[in-house]
Amino acid sequence: MHKTILTAAAALAMSTLVVSGLARAAEPDEIAAARIGYFKLVNLEMGGLAAMAQGKAPYDAEKAKALASDLGTLSGYLHDDLLMPGTSNAELAGKTRALPAIWEKPEDYRAKAESFRQAVVDLNQVAGQGQEALAPAVGKLGATCKACHDDYRAKDF
Amino acid sequence: MHKTILTAAAALAMSTLVVSGLARAAEPDEIAAARIGYFKLVNLEMGGLAAMAQGKAPYDAEKAKALASDLGTLSGYLHDDLLMPGTSNAELAGKTRALPAIWEKPEDYRAKAESFRQAVVDLNQVAGQGQEALAPAVGKLGATCKACHDDYRAKDF
Repeated sequence: MHKTILTAAAALAMSTLVVSGLARAAEPDEIAAARIGYFKLVNLEMGGLAAMAQGKAPYDAEKAKALASDLGTLSGYLHDDLLMPGTSNAELAGKTRALPAIWEKPEDYRAKAESFRQAVVDLNQVAGQGQEALAPAVGKLGATCKACHDDYRAKDF
Repeated sequence: MHKTILTAAAALAMSTLVVSGLARAAEPDEIAAARIGYFKLVNLEMGGLAAMAQGKAPYDAEKAKALASDLGTLSGYLHDDLLMPGTSNAELAGKTRALPAIWEKPEDYRAKAESFRQAVVDLNQVAGQGQEALAPAVGKLGATCKACHDDYRAKDF
């Protein structure tokens, strides 16, 4: 019992050391930075897929499947945490391109996010089946990206 | 047949519009930025958990489970793409804190990443069972973060 308590205390002390700067609600600009980080990851996976889809990089079934799988993982990340009110470009000028419309039309935003998720599911079903199968699936996925960018992302910071 | 080809062509054209800037291998500094983005996301989830573990925020079982679940998703993201050689702070001074040791001792780095993943699994098993159960699991998880930071992350940019 004592051992358990000591272990827990030691672990907690360790945690305090490691994350003492973080043990609080995130500030709006931290949320915006993490959100940008999320889309940088999506962008990275998408870039590799688009290169193969457009013939700018040689098609590689294993790589295509890995990129699509990573996009699947990312699309499963519930980024509600990243949509804290007060983090649009109206409040954080120069730090985000997220338009206030995201918070004004949350149902439409979520519907567009769901289209993205579904396109990622569809992509995963064909990613390993050759460049001819990959290209249209990447195109459809890109269209779901664009639909959201058109309505909810400013052209510039 | 024609319809299929046209649809694919249209989708590909759309994809070209959307991702034309990305359809190429990522540059090292883009990789580093995406990697920082990944850890910002981990950091955000961890911050919320640490606040509850340390009593700086009220324990909320649903929130704890959601944060732990998101960490589970993130720990499932295969960030091998983010470990491109040539992206340490030796090559990209000021743009990353990743030490060259990551690429010099890949097996140890991967073992530490695996410890992180296992600690996230363990955390998910107890996150909803009260603050007393959460705290040591967060502490153990924080220790896996620290182990990697000690060896593979520079103190500053």
